[in-house]
Amino acid sequence: MTFDQFMQHYKQEIENCMKQAIIATESDQKLEQSMMYSLEAGGKRIRPLLVLATLIAFDCEPKLGYRTAAAMEMIHTYSLIHDDLPAMDNDDFRRGKLTNHKVYGEATAILAGDALLTKAFELIVSDTKLSTPVRVNLIQLFAKSAGASGMVGGQQADILGENQTLSLADLESIHRRKTGALLSASVLSGAIIAEASDADRLALEKFAHHIGIAFQICDDILDVIGDAEKMGKKTGADADLQKSTYPALLSLEGAKQALAEHTNSAKKALHTMNIDASLLLGLTDLIAVRDF
Amino acid sequence: MTFDQFMQHYKQEIENCMKQAIIATESDQKLEQSMMYSLEAGGKRIRPLLVLATLIAFDCEPKLGYRTAAAMEMIHTYSLIHDDLPAMDNDDFRRGKLTNHKVYGEATAILAGDALLTKAFELIVSDTKLSTPVRVNLIQLFAKSAGASGMVGGQQADILGENQTLSLADLESIHRRKTGALLSASVLSGAIIAEASDADRLALEKFAHHIGIAFQICDDILDVIGDAEKMGKKTGADADLQKSTYPALLSLEGAKQALAEHTNSAKKALHTMNIDASLLLGLTDLIAVRDF
Repeated sequence: MTFDQFMQHYKQEIENCMKQAIIATESDQKLEQSMMYSLEAGGKRIRPLLVLATLIAFDCEPKLGYRTAAAMEMIHTYSLIHDDLPAMDNDDFRRGKLTNHKVYGEATAILAGDALLTKAFELIVSDTKLSTPVRVNLIQLFAKSAGASGMVGGQQADILGENQTLSLADLESIHRRKTGALLSASVLSGAIIAEASDADRLALEKFAHHIGIAFQICDDILDVIGDAEKMGKKTGADADLQKSTYPALLSLEGAKQALAEHTNSAKKALHTMNIDASLLLGLTDLIAVRDF
Repeated sequence: MTFDQFMQHYKQEIENCMKQAIIATESDQKLEQSMMYSLEAGGKRIRPLLVLATLIAFDCEPKLGYRTAAAMEMIHTYSLIHDDLPAMDNDDFRRGKLTNHKVYGEATAILAGDALLTKAFELIVSDTKLSTPVRVNLIQLFAKSAGASGMVGGQQADILGENQTLSLADLESIHRRKTGALLSASVLSGAIIAEASDADRLALEKFAHHIGIAFQICDDILDVIGDAEKMGKKTGADADLQKSTYPALLSLEGAKQALAEHTNSAKKALHTMNIDASLLLGLTDLIAVRDF
């Protein structure tokens, strides 16, 4: 299977799995529409594809990871819905489409986010293809990565960091939680399902750490040089909010160099394991080499 | 142990458990303060006490339920924080204290709610006093009760029902989800930990169904006749929002009668089981006979 075939096929499987999960929910129609709207708003599905690519690297049946992958994308999606709210980033557009609250109103957007987060846990816990200890380990990982010590804590620190000049260490601490935690959890949840060895998990953590930072550097660079139309949202937002970014701290060239270094370190970590890392290498390039 | 001793002792234990859980979280300080603020804002702790009273009714060690009880109160608390937001009920006061967003700002309040919901799942999944199948069953119950087909769906239906005259059936459908789902889950999670028989679980479901409705009827009555100072929040809010309520649909006397009927049905359900139901009976009275 080529990388492109992997991307195309499994993106579809993940999207089907998410859709099925929402259809199977007996709920209020407007709430379901609002949840589906953001789940269907596209994106590269990097997190769920990391789950499946990790499973395949360990020669494990990808189907075992569908629900976990879908759950991961739901958590990511909920975080975007809440981040876009007027009280947070106040974004009207995301991936070229109106943000959830612009279509369904703020109250429903808040509830749709809450419901997606909750649904993610439901999807994993009721996944009878996985043993109960595996489900428990996955939920532990998800809760830790998505919660106050992970993504939500990073988001809070990010808000508090606006209008302040942060050190590189502070900036990395924010992004390790805000973006890195879920990317890490995606890779590690694949490792949990594949029952990877402790040594391999450590190597995967290292890999995930570097792609997490690479991802954020990329995002910051795109915010400076990107084309609003291509990004599907307004660019230059970081500068408007006077946010500390990698290009602001390291210069644009320095940021590009740091990006290359983290990408290399990520790839090196993969090469220490006896796995078929081709898809994970492909995803690393996708994360790190976007349109610039 | 008298009912008052039960209330006093276990309220304290639940509050300690919640506090420990927040202290143990490595997170952003403001986020933690915001989470603690609402957890410490008081309330009767009916849901977590229902968990523990059910355990005691089955002669099961209450300690086994502390984390589950704390998790339940966290989910309840997150729902209050989000419900109070300007985009939702726009309440400035709750239990006589400023609401979370009035103190910490909207962004942090949204994130504190998200973090409490996530923390609830973390608390249960990492509770090593419980077997992995029990933890899986609890999380399944929590996710279903709190999510789109439960509490969040009920909240959405409640918003859509404003300015509309609902039938009694519609009103019960909303409250069965908005308030009833968590009250039910509190009782049923006690049953899961105590490994109650299927017959007893059915009886407990019946019990929980009736106290859920009783709880809501009471709330509606208090909103009409309650004293704002005693309630710690503004009353008459339902009428302002032109919400359908039990007193509006049944008259005040009719609502009081329905309340008595549901309370009796709840108690009857308890009497079909061979358990020591005294604490559950006490909680039923607490729920159904508030200050009027």
